[in-house]
Amino acid sequence: AANKKLLFLPGDGIGPEVMRQVRRVIDWMDRKRKITFDVSEGLVGGAAIDAHGVPLSDATLAEALAVDAVMLGAVGGPKWDNPTDYTKRPEAGLLTLRKELGLFANLRPAVVFDALVDASTLKADVIRGLDILIVRELTGGVYFGEPRGITEIGDGERRGVNTQVYTTSEIRRVARVAFELARKRGNKLCSMEKANVMESGLLWRQEVTKLHGEEFQDVELSHMYADNGAMQLLKNPKQFDVIVTDNLFGDILSDEAAMMTGSLGMLPSASLGAPDANGNRKALYEPVHGSAPDIAGRDLANPCATLLSFAMCLRYSFNLDEDAKLIERAIQNVLGGGMRTSDIMAPGMARCSTTVMGDSILREL
Amino acid sequence: AANKKLLFLPGDGIGPEVMRQVRRVIDWMDRKRKITFDVSEGLVGGAAIDAHGVPLSDATLAEALAVDAVMLGAVGGPKWDNPTDYTKRPEAGLLTLRKELGLFANLRPAVVFDALVDASTLKADVIRGLDILIVRELTGGVYFGEPRGITEIGDGERRGVNTQVYTTSEIRRVARVAFELARKRGNKLCSMEKANVMESGLLWRQEVTKLHGEEFQDVELSHMYADNGAMQLLKNPKQFDVIVTDNLFGDILSDEAAMMTGSLGMLPSASLGAPDANGNRKALYEPVHGSAPDIAGRDLANPCATLLSFAMCLRYSFNLDEDAKLIERAIQNVLGGGMRTSDIMAPGMARCSTTVMGDSILREL
Ligand SMILES: CC(C)[C@H](C(=O)O)[C@@H](O)C(=O)O
Ligand SMILES: CC(C)[C@H](C(=O)O)[C@@H](O)C(=O)O
Repeated sequence: AANKKLLFLPGDGIGPEVMRQVRRVIDWMDRKRKITFDVSEGLVGGAAIDAHGVPLSDATLAEALAVDAVMLGAVGGPKWDNPTDYTKRPEAGLLTLRKELGLFANLRPAVVFDALVDASTLKADVIRGLDILIVRELTGGVYFGEPRGITEIGDGERRGVNTQVYTTSEIRRVARVAFELARKRGNKLCSMEKANVMESGLLWRQEVTKLHGEEFQDVELSHMYADNGAMQLLKNPKQFDVIVTDNLFGDILSDEAAMMTGSLGMLPSASLGAPDANGNRKALYEPVHGSAPDIAGRDLANPCATLLSFAMCLRYSFNLDEDAKLIERAIQNVLGGGMRTSDIMAPGMARCSTTVMGDSILREL
Repeated sequence: AANKKLLFLPGDGIGPEVMRQVRRVIDWMDRKRKITFDVSEGLVGGAAIDAHGVPLSDATLAEALAVDAVMLGAVGGPKWDNPTDYTKRPEAGLLTLRKELGLFANLRPAVVFDALVDASTLKADVIRGLDILIVRELTGGVYFGEPRGITEIGDGERRGVNTQVYTTSEIRRVARVAFELARKRGNKLCSMEKANVMESGLLWRQEVTKLHGEEFQDVELSHMYADNGAMQLLKNPKQFDVIVTDNLFGDILSDEAAMMTGSLGMLPSASLGAPDANGNRKALYEPVHGSAPDIAGRDLANPCATLLSFAMCLRYSFNLDEDAKLIERAIQNVLGGGMRTSDIMAPGMARCSTTVMGDSILREL
């Protein structure tokens, strides 16, 4: 079989240095495992703005559409902040990728590693063993709805507008992904919206309920208003298994859940499109953390989130569950051995650099 | 001087029983303090639906517009859930009150009482002494924007739409309230939106920045994306003093902050309109907690949030800071003495009913 094709988009800030550790794991796989990859590399975000004047060039987008999976580092930084032209922001590169690749299902696990239970600002017994999965809709809602923009309305006044919009099929396809994932886990799905205030949320609730009745009656379904969801996550996070929610609520709630684990530097994500006739789907994998410009280029960043994103890539794009588990277990063992990058450093542990963390994980593999 | 006019809207669930304790404090004030009140009472929410078929009758709305301040208990309950007609939901009564009274500034303190520091799921050192104030815009944004609704779009598909919209003056007036409150506190304001994704958020950021430059340069202003805000609240809540944000983000973030304190039953809120020529403003005060149908009518609810809402009423509507402090101190002392309603019960404390909590606070007064 032909090699699997990967596109690397390291992006800005710490993106390149954490992605370098993925390269090393890929080299190891080429030598030791049954799969080999062709890796190409491109620019996204601020790096692409500097080189081409746009956060994602047409050529890079075409490449992203052609490969089997995209691995992204991080985008953004103070250097490119502030331009009021949305098409010239680093974020626009990421948003274009999501939209053009049709990556409507964003999987964000919030997992607490036993070795890191004390890193959270939450009490250990509240979060020990936490393992929830947030499925965020990623190509609809207020992120892409029209009309949008800022207009002059006279008397020196301006008006800013965005549109939250969801259709039946947009809701059903992401809910389907969430139900299917729930079946492979704790078999519980909680859907979050503001159906009490927003008609788009009411439609969301109705369609999720309908799909449940049609195809997923074996999964335990509940609904929660998103504000209550933000509270319940804090009050008793372990009540949740899979959560499905829209683009904007998903942005906020998944970040809340991520911070609850106390270890942003450990959290991966996957963004998936619809399966084609052969069961292949477009996919992009990236760490939840940002570009961290303050520590960029200093070999301080935690590469684990990116390596775990690569593990998700192996699992969801290439069906290599065993290889994914090898990487996940290697990381757990290295943490268990006391190795810590600065972001997760704790008394009595051994502080290490990005590279040394990579070394240790490779040795473990 | 004529008596001050209050409208009591106890609403549903535990609303009536917690409001009863406010009555007792008002009786005490009539006897012992320099102010007397005329209190009228009306229906809102499910109670109004049962009596009149609508969650807020025109007569009650007229009364609310005529009085000096409204005290609300809580609205909603399973009995009135599910109707897809938005005008027939308990919440609609509350939303109409907010809109018709022009209550654009919603003040939600998130305060941790020393006696209750262990009630939180967050570690004590993270939240001890926490005192932040969230100012949520309350009459604009996606809650009220048009167009909105659900439409059939053919092929059995439906489309749900809501509109997020803010104008210059809507942003400025709520930001002004927030800047002024910051001046009376820690002199720090953080504004939250998603200016990186939403034009309405970009306008928000620009207008807050402009007002700061024009009138509030002495206040330390910062901006944060709302998703990062959700994280920073958890990571280090004490970095904040006053937060200003829109209706929807405010709904989520203020509930997150409220749950962080661990004592929802202790948190009051104030919703304020614009001052008229005499400096008087329409105002509504309500606890942050909901109607708690599961414990309604059993004398179990915590009346403190509602009593503290009344203290806010004394402060913001009647300029009676001293009387407000009397009530706040009485509550603190009762907590210090070990008295606890069920929601905040802890080992070694004395569990008490709603009425007994009221008794103790009155005795303290
Ligand atoms: C960078 C930004 C556009 C993005 C978003 O809002 O979706 C980020 O916050 C995320 O969650 O991936
Ligand atoms: C009851 C509901 C309409 C309301 C809101 O969404 O504003 C509530 O959650 C609140 O925060 O006061």
